[in-house]
Parts: sequence; structure tokens; C-alpha cells
Amino acid sequence: MSTAAPRTAGPDHLWSVDEHLADILATVRPLEPIELNLLDAQGCVLVEDVTVPVSLPPFDNSSMDGYAVRVADVAGASEQYPAVLEVVGDVAAGQADLLHVGPGQAARIMTGAPLPPGAETVVPVEWTDGGLGEGPVTGMRARSLAPEAATGQVHVHRPAGARAHVRAQGSDVRAGDRALTAGTVLGPPQISLLAAIGRGRVRVHPRPRVVVLSTGSELVQPDEELRAGQIYDSNSFALTAAARDAGAIAYRVGAVADDAATLRDTIEDQLVRADLMVTTGGVSVGAYDVVKEALSHAADEDEPGSGVEFRKLAMQPGKPQGFGSIGPDHTPLLALPGNPVSSYVSFELFVRPAIRTLMGLTDVHRPRVRAELTAERALTSPKGRRQFLRGRYADGTVTPVGGAGSHLVAALARANALIVVPEDTESVAPGAEVEVVLLG
Amino acid sequence: MSTAAPRTAGPDHLWSVDEHLADILATVRPLEPIELNLLDAQGCVLVEDVTVPVSLPPFDNSSMDGYAVRVADVAGASEQYPAVLEVVGDVAAGQADLLHVGPGQAARIMTGAPLPPGAETVVPVEWTDGGLGEGPVTGMRARSLAPEAATGQVHVHRPAGARAHVRAQGSDVRAGDRALTAGTVLGPPQISLLAAIGRGRVRVHPRPRVVVLSTGSELVQPDEELRAGQIYDSNSFALTAAARDAGAIAYRVGAVADDAATLRDTIEDQLVRADLMVTTGGVSVGAYDVVKEALSHAADEDEPGSGVEFRKLAMQPGKPQGFGSIGPDHTPLLALPGNPVSSYVSFELFVRPAIRTLMGLTDVHRPRVRAELTAERALTSPKGRRQFLRGRYADGTVTPVGGAGSHLVAALARANALIVVPEDTESVAPGAEVEVVLLG
Repeated sequence: MSTAAPRTAGPDHLWSVDEHLADILATVRPLEPIELNLLDAQGCVLVEDVTVPVSLPPFDNSSMDGYAVRVADVAGASEQYPAVLEVVGDVAAGQADLLHVGPGQAARIMTGAPLPPGAETVVPVEWTDGGLGEGPVTGMRARSLAPEAATGQVHVHRPAGARAHVRAQGSDVRAGDRALTAGTVLGPPQISLLAAIGRGRVRVHPRPRVVVLSTGSELVQPDEELRAGQIYDSNSFALTAAARDAGAIAYRVGAVADDAATLRDTIEDQLVRADLMVTTGGVSVGAYDVVKEALSHAADEDEPGSGVEFRKLAMQPGKPQGFGSIGPDHTPLLALPGNPVSSYVSFELFVRPAIRTLMGLTDVHRPRVRAELTAERALTSPKGRRQFLRGRYADGTVTPVGGAGSHLVAALARANALIVVPEDTESVAPGAEVEVVLLG
Repeated sequence: MSTAAPRTAGPDHLWSVDEHLADILATVRPLEPIELNLLDAQGCVLVEDVTVPVSLPPFDNSSMDGYAVRVADVAGASEQYPAVLEVVGDVAAGQADLLHVGPGQAARIMTGAPLPPGAETVVPVEWTDGGLGEGPVTGMRARSLAPEAATGQVHVHRPAGARAHVRAQGSDVRAGDRALTAGTVLGPPQISLLAAIGRGRVRVHPRPRVVVLSTGSELVQPDEELRAGQIYDSNSFALTAAARDAGAIAYRVGAVADDAATLRDTIEDQLVRADLMVTTGGVSVGAYDVVKEALSHAADEDEPGSGVEFRKLAMQPGKPQGFGSIGPDHTPLLALPGNPVSSYVSFELFVRPAIRTLMGLTDVHRPRVRAELTAERALTSPKGRRQFLRGRYADGTVTPVGGAGSHLVAALARANALIVVPEDTESVAPGAEVEVVLLG
């Protein structure tokens, strides 16, 4: 007789990594879209197609600091035989009331300023005497220091064709164009475009709020004194950092002792700020495996879809895993094993894709590559288990770091990849090609 | 006569991209280290070697849920001829007062719990009857539901060698070992290791505080109404997002009008929260180029090293650039051109490496690869200028997006790379190999 409650697949059934991941991704859905200020939406996924409301640039404008003139007035101009024009004033960027440029006239114009009526082209200031009458200049003097330069005469030394150095209205984007499509991830260039077309707020999937909670009566906070039988809590720190790294807003809850009532109360308290709950520890076959104990009670029989299922997976490390939903909003919960390396590997394989799915991303997995195994001896792996070994990947080769022991946090800190040894492989020889998950 | 103030290199001198970058990186220094809580140090660079203060695990402990026994007591055990042992109680994780396991005795032990005195090995619960007397079990019943299971007898069905399923004290890291070396970037696995060895605070270079300020009387905030001659401010949004993306804490200051006194006041107000100041616009040769005007006054003659130098660079886009330091703390300032694409490219080339240098990173540049140019016609580039074209890179090939016009923010939003056309190249044929900066 087994002590475990009967389940469809039986307590000894080993689920594959892929089955477990598929069940998680079939349950977790992108969060309800909200409207956010542009900079708050950085890294988020747009849920609307954004159309350009106004053509950019919104008006013909100068791409140079220079003089706005008529083409005929500068035809044939040279340094020896300059065109001498009357300067009627300045056109600065942002200026609304524009001068009219008539025959024989020039308006001093700044980059980005509207091409004034009457003007047909722009000659850069470097092609003129800047109004000083002493040969070509390299720039204008500041208006505040030399206001007289906006009047008087200017000598133009070179001709310019129609609309030279003019950026045409609508030459970047046109009103009605699709600026960005739903599903776009908003990085700096996309934020630039949205601001440029006047969008200060956008509808996106928000970042998920992830509550990370470690369990274990043996756990002590770093910087506290370690007494007999105790170890430091590292999981809540590691997974909070990893959840942020995946794009979440992560809240770390201090380690909870192995008491089912306390754990239930803590989880219920935290539900209000959780789009996803992650626990570590207490999921195995021991008599004090409190997450299993507490969450089998947390399932509300009246709430369809509620409840957490605990499984054994055909993987190493990370065999015992729990997944389900809890509370009135059916908040998804992943219960990871307590060993630091097991929980970190489990996070990478299951929690990170769940977080990225909640964000509305379609590319939810770490990149995988094939690499040549560099090792002194063959890797061994238990038959029927998919093994994830820590390794360092560089230039197409991967080298294991540390052993297979699942408690080697020191080795994990030197790894940048997971080496995948499939279920049906018991040994991998040096030089063989292996699949590698790049930890980024 | 030139209107520009005389400089060593002359106002017409074109500085190379590499010269300008080298000058910036020769000036900017990693920020003074501070001590931060572990999770606040995520992504930061460690400035101290961290030594392991206590061996991990700190005591011999069980890697399984099972029974702690003496080797001789289970020698030759089988399901048919089990070893029958007296259960003396439980050893849970975190328990300080340990039972003694004598001959013929077993202590029920949980994963992570200390190996009790007298015990020599651990048999997993799956190799026993779990005290129920009815054949092998798959796990223990919860202590709270079945306290009687910590007493009575257990039948053990398999033998175990000495220290089987025991994680030896110090087998992960030993006291005195180097856990992490100065210069390590603190990602989740490094944070895991630091927490595991009890370090709750670490000395790191802090993230730089970057103030981003755009200038231009034509600039209007997104969501406001656009009047004649006005455009939306996108630079302050784009560069704030890009600064965060580079690792900084970024503060966006709304666009400042083209008035030197206002700009000077704004910059002075912001200095208190800036490790780096970034401005856009007002750096060219126009009469309203207010950044140039304001910052030539901001240099304090009594403060050596203070002052901002404005240069023309042999690059496109991004020819006019300013760099220097301001204020009593000689806060570094980069003055970028105002055109959105010019400022973004300038950020990537100059500001991002500066931010990452302030963070203490050694790998400050975007990755560069060689790629085959896919294009309908040859790219043209002005002689003597290093051109940076926006492109999409995938699988070893790169395709230009949009034209060379520096105002194409729409194209920038589709780009994931910059195509580099060197100074001495005026044309690049389709199929040619080009250098590409990956924008990540």
C-alpha cells in the first residue's frame, strides 16, 4: 500500500520535463493589458497596433543651420562672385510666426526650424560669410551674443538646388501608417518612435508580480548567526533575482518554517500582490514536506481549476515538482524543490517560461545551441532521467563545472549554461556534441 | 575669419570616432564602491574578493528522506528478509538536538537534516515499508497527520554502504575558499552563492545615476497638442530607456527651451543626482545652439579639468558632439546632437560605454560581428566619415532598414544592428562583408 493519495498516473509515475512544461504553459495566460506611461512600459509587450496620428516631420524643415533662400537668388554664386542677400531675420526651431522670404532676401534658419514661406532651399552657413563679410565661416555666433547677425547682408558662396537640406513633411512616417504592431517588445528605439508620434501612454501586458517564498525550519537569513543544524537561505534571494532577470517585479518573502498553518497563512497574505507564486522546498516525500501538506488543503473544492498537483519528474536535479493554482483568482503557483541547485534549474526550465508567458512574450525560452563537450572523462547520467549539468559555454564548446551533486552552489556561480543529457543517454564521451541551454 | 573660438585642433578639424571614445573612456572612472544589500547589488560589479567563512554544507546531512541507520544493521537486507529496526524518532531539517542511533535502531530523517550521532548511512524511505509493515512505500506520511510513524518498527529492504545518501560537511565549499573574485558581475547564481555562505551585504560599484535632458524650443511632450513648428520630444524618452538598459538608474528631465540661462539653471539643479549628465540638441553651428552656449560658461576656470569641449566627428550621423565635465564634482557630461537617430547612435557609441565604465564593467561595448550585406543596391557613404546605418541582422546577414537620412525614427524601431561603413569606404556592394554592431 502506498501512503500517497491515489492519482490518475499513480505516485510512481515519472512525468517528462516536456509534459510538465506543456501543462504549465497551457495554464498560464498573458496578464490583462493595462495602459502605462511610456517609460513604465519599457520591456513590456504592446497589445495594440499603433497608427501614426500625424506625419513626421510634421512640416518641411531645415536639416542644417544656414539660410533659407530662393533658388534663383543663389544660382551661379561663388566665393569670388557671391550672391548678396538681405537678411530678414531668424527662423528658430519651434518658431510659429514665420518670416516671408522674398526675392533677394534670406532668413537665417536653424536645424529643425520650419522652411519659411517664400523660401525654396537652404544653404548651410558654411557656404556663406555668416553676414560678417570676411569669407566663409564655420558656424553662426550665438544669437544672445551677436543679435545683429540676424540682420544686414549675407554673402552666399555656392548655389543650391530646390529643397536642398530640406526634410520634407511626412518623409519619416505618414499619418495612418502602422508605427508598431501588437506583440512588439518595447525597447528604447520603439519608445523613441512612440514618443516621436506623440504617444505618451500605451496598452501593454504588465510585468508580472512574482512572490518568492522559501520554506525550511533549517533556514537562517544571511548575516545572522548559524546554529547547529542550520544553513543560510539562498533560494529566496536567487529566485527573486532570477525572476527580475526574467522581467518580473519580484517580492522576496523570508523563509517560512516547516509548519503548514504558518505557510498557508503566509501564502494567503501574499496572494494580494502575486500574479505568480513560487515556493521552494517541502515538495518531496518526507514527513515535514510542508508545501505539499499545506497546498493539498489550500485547494478549494468549490473552485474548479483550483489546487496544486505534486509530481515526480524524469529529470535530475529537480525530480519533485508542484504546479497548480491557488486562491480566489486561481493564481498560478510553482512549487520547486528546496535544494539550491535543483530550485535554480527548475526556475530556468519552468518558472522563467511562465513569467515570460505572463508578460505576453512569445519567445519564452532560453536559447539552446549544440556544443562540443570538453571534459576529462565521460559524463554519466541515470537512464530514464533528463539530466541538466552546469557548464561553461564558449565558442562552440562546453565544459562541465562541478559534479552532478545537486548541492553545488559554488559550481553554479561559475556556470553560464546547462548541459542537457537526454533520458535515453547514460554516457556522453568527451568530444561528443551535446545540447546546451545558454543562461544568458 | 572664423566665428568659432580658436582651439588646438581648429574648428574644422574632424575627430575620429575612436579618438572621441578614447577621450571619454580615459576620463570616466568606475564609481566609488558602496556596500549594498544583496538584492540591491544585482547586476553590479563586486569590488572585493569574497572568502567562504563557513564550509558548506556546514554539517553532514541527508540527501534523501529516509532512515539514518548503522551499516551493519542493514547488511544483506532484502524485501524477503528485511532488516527490522526500532524507530527512535525523527530528525528534521533545522533540528539542533539530535537523537543517538544505536545498534538495531533507526532515526527517520528528512532531506537536509543532520546525520545523527551513531548513524553511518541513510536508506531512502522508498527502500523501506515506512513503518507500515505492508511492503515498499513511495513516501512518508506527514508528521502532523501520522505522528505514530516516528516510533515503532521499520522494515528495511535493501542494504546501504557507509555514508550513502549523505552530503559531507564541506563538500560544496570549504571555509577559506575564494567564493567570488573582485570584478564578478552579480547575477542570480552569484547572489545564490553569496546568500548561501551568509553574506547579506556586499561591496560593489553602484549603478550610475544618469540624468537625461533634451533641449529645443520646438519640443512638446507626447500627448500634448502639437502647434505650428513643434515636434514631440522623443530623445529624453529614448535615452532614458537606453540608459536603464545599459544598467543605469536614469532620470528623465523634460525638454528645456533654447535659453542658455534656463538650461544652466536646470543642469545645476540636476547635478546633485547625476553621476553622468546627457543632453541632446544644441551642439551644432546654429545661433540658438544653447547647450554649446550654456556649457562654455559652465566651465569654472578655477576648477582644473572642468569644462565641456565641442567637436566635429568624422561620423554620420552624429557629427557634432560635446564631452567634458561640469560642476564642483566634475560630473561627466556628454552633449549629443538633437536629431533622434543621431542621438541614439551617439548614445550607443559613447554613452553606453561610459555608463558601463562607471559601473566598473570591463566589457563595455556592444558585441560586433562580421555579416554579409543583403541589399538591392550598393550602400554609399561619404568619404572620410564613418557611417552607421540601421540594419536588421539575422543568421550572418544584415539588411539595411530605412535610408541614410538621420531622422528616420521609424526605421530605427525596426533595426537590431548598426552597419558600420569605414571612413575610407564610399560604396559597399551587396554580398560584401561588413562590420555590424549588435544592439541586443
